[in-house]
Amino acid sequence: MFSFNIANKDSSSLARRATLETPHGKLETPAFMPVGTRGSVKGILPNQLADTGAQMILANTYHLYLRPGVETVETLGGLHRFMGWDGPILTDSGGYQVFSLSGLNHISDDEVEFASHIDGAKIRLSPQIAIDVQNRLGADIIMAFDECVELPCSKERMRLAVDRTLRWAEQSLEAHQRSDQWLFGITQGGTDPELRQYCTEELIKLDFPGYAIGGLSVGEGHELMIETTRFNAAILPEDKPRYLMGVGTPRDLAAAIEAGIDMFDCVMPTRNGRNGFAFTSEGTLRLRNSKYTTDRSPIDPNCSCYTCRNFSKGTLRHFILVNEMAGPILVSLHNLHFYQWFMQQARQAIEENRYGSWAKQWQNHDMERIQSQKDKDMESPTCETIHNDLN
Amino acid sequence: MFSFNIANKDSSSLARRATLETPHGKLETPAFMPVGTRGSVKGILPNQLADTGAQMILANTYHLYLRPGVETVETLGGLHRFMGWDGPILTDSGGYQVFSLSGLNHISDDEVEFASHIDGAKIRLSPQIAIDVQNRLGADIIMAFDECVELPCSKERMRLAVDRTLRWAEQSLEAHQRSDQWLFGITQGGTDPELRQYCTEELIKLDFPGYAIGGLSVGEGHELMIETTRFNAAILPEDKPRYLMGVGTPRDLAAAIEAGIDMFDCVMPTRNGRNGFAFTSEGTLRLRNSKYTTDRSPIDPNCSCYTCRNFSKGTLRHFILVNEMAGPILVSLHNLHFYQWFMQQARQAIEENRYGSWAKQWQNHDMERIQSQKDKDMESPTCETIHNDLN
Repeated sequence: MFSFNIANKDSSSLARRATLETPHGKLETPAFMPVGTRGSVKGILPNQLADTGAQMILANTYHLYLRPGVETVETLGGLHRFMGWDGPILTDSGGYQVFSLSGLNHISDDEVEFASHIDGAKIRLSPQIAIDVQNRLGADIIMAFDECVELPCSKERMRLAVDRTLRWAEQSLEAHQRSDQWLFGITQGGTDPELRQYCTEELIKLDFPGYAIGGLSVGEGHELMIETTRFNAAILPEDKPRYLMGVGTPRDLAAAIEAGIDMFDCVMPTRNGRNGFAFTSEGTLRLRNSKYTTDRSPIDPNCSCYTCRNFSKGTLRHFILVNEMAGPILVSLHNLHFYQWFMQQARQAIEENRYGSWAKQWQNHDMERIQSQKDKDMESPTCETIHNDLN
Repeated sequence: MFSFNIANKDSSSLARRATLETPHGKLETPAFMPVGTRGSVKGILPNQLADTGAQMILANTYHLYLRPGVETVETLGGLHRFMGWDGPILTDSGGYQVFSLSGLNHISDDEVEFASHIDGAKIRLSPQIAIDVQNRLGADIIMAFDECVELPCSKERMRLAVDRTLRWAEQSLEAHQRSDQWLFGITQGGTDPELRQYCTEELIKLDFPGYAIGGLSVGEGHELMIETTRFNAAILPEDKPRYLMGVGTPRDLAAAIEAGIDMFDCVMPTRNGRNGFAFTSEGTLRLRNSKYTTDRSPIDPNCSCYTCRNFSKGTLRHFILVNEMAGPILVSLHNLHFYQWFMQQARQAIEENRYGSWAKQWQNHDMERIQSQKDKDMESPTCETIHNDLN
């Protein structure tokens, strides 16, 4: 039902080209998964998403647990039918959201109690509950319940989080009931090599079918994120999929693939798209800029997406300025297409054993330009609030 | 370049089945035109719109004149390219919006001066300006500048509006410069038969290639609207297209087609769709209703639209309640598909000379049920504010 087969390895880096088979179809890796927080990738219908080349979508256990609730999703036919998406789906465990989004009331070695970010209702989550909910939602890949702490953080506090994450990983495995879902473990330990190594080695003993690197892209910056990813990816089993959670910019992705990462998710293409921020191979554009008012050219003349084939930058700017839904939709659609095109280029470069030279062109790409163009209308285009995408 | 050919006439009513040829393709009538106020049908991309069966779209001169401005649309390649829609487009003249939407400062027999609804800026509009703007936007069918007064209104005031509308119709014809656009006249006169007749007879002398009935569906109610439409349609030239502006519900459309109307536009499918209100052949549904929480069935099991093929009422309710863009998009898409299906059924009934019996089933359709389900979250589902669709 599941398999992970590596087809090519780049000789000058740790990048690899593989295929992950799931009960709902395959994922060609390295792969980027768009985020459908509450069962929908914001503004983009499943058929449009498939047209971008996306194969697998992420949904958020925390959000679906609160609304509409797991029983409702079950009654409506499970997550695939609920979302109108027949391809592979991955759900995260809710751990990240509990710690980043809700009001945390109480945490013990067995469970957390928090206040819903919607109405303040007291809600409990534990490894058993998180896995039970994910079993009932029915995604193809589900995630262990982990403790994700904010950075910077003391080594003592981080050690506590790692110990809890390991204890909860074991409990997650015990709770897991479905053979048609793969349960991945998540490493924690911040940017501390010793704790990362300890966490990773202990998790490997539990023999998960795949591993995620969690707790990164939370403000530590590109260099430290990539350094930690390089270190952590290298000590994960080579024959199992590696998933870097909540990352990132094209530059982040290029470097992480080089470190041997297979899977990614991030709200960047959609969140930035909704704010009129477009990714291109040449860099990034802020479509609100008045210089685009009468620009007849598409976002990217080399792009084959629906947006670029049919709309000028001038029209897109108009839609964004007057708050027409078409603005966020069309720019998100382009950005998602760009991310899939980017991954397709990366896969091809690995197949042709020239990944290193391909990745080099992305080293100085875009983040500087994005950051230099901050304004009040635009959310910060980092993935710090990655799974926080409430609206 | 243009033609209007009537293929079938229903023997028991005034309904007719025709084809309107334009430089951007044909329109099978009776036809429903979705409204793309500011260059976009809210939430629906042009390729999705084409999939619903829509052939012609309406755009609003008033809104485009204010933002992004006619020069910008011209520079961006004209209205078709601006909107990403290569099929026929109709623009209204802005008359309706000037009187319903903006702060009217001054009106004379030559022009109106008003305050923009966006920033209060003083703006002038006249037949010459309205036609010049529409010539430059480049729609296939454009409309004469008219004075549309609120109902109820004194006969004296209405007579003044009719006289201005006639004067402005003549000036509109004189100003019109492009042979690849058809300019339609608009009758006014409220629900007063004498004034409607006078206005219509005088307009006919000016020999427009098509005529619209304006100033209806502004609060006078279904019966009076249809009575006036019947009277007015019957005295319009039989060999020219007849367009009833801003109408309406399925019941309105069925009755107006019976009176000999060929073309319609209305924001109902999209505005109601954004509020979770769905049209079906069986009646209307308010998807916020808690009874749909775990309803696995589509909006309409007989509907072949993307929404009904892929989403349950339960999922749609969830999307609407949590403010996911997918909610408004999917319900709007269904409603637009329903309206096009409705018109297709009407055309077929005329072709098979059974229009009267087909129309009968819509006599008691939906409006009662819509009105009985009013709530604060839902805008009033009439077409009273038809061209007012600001957000």
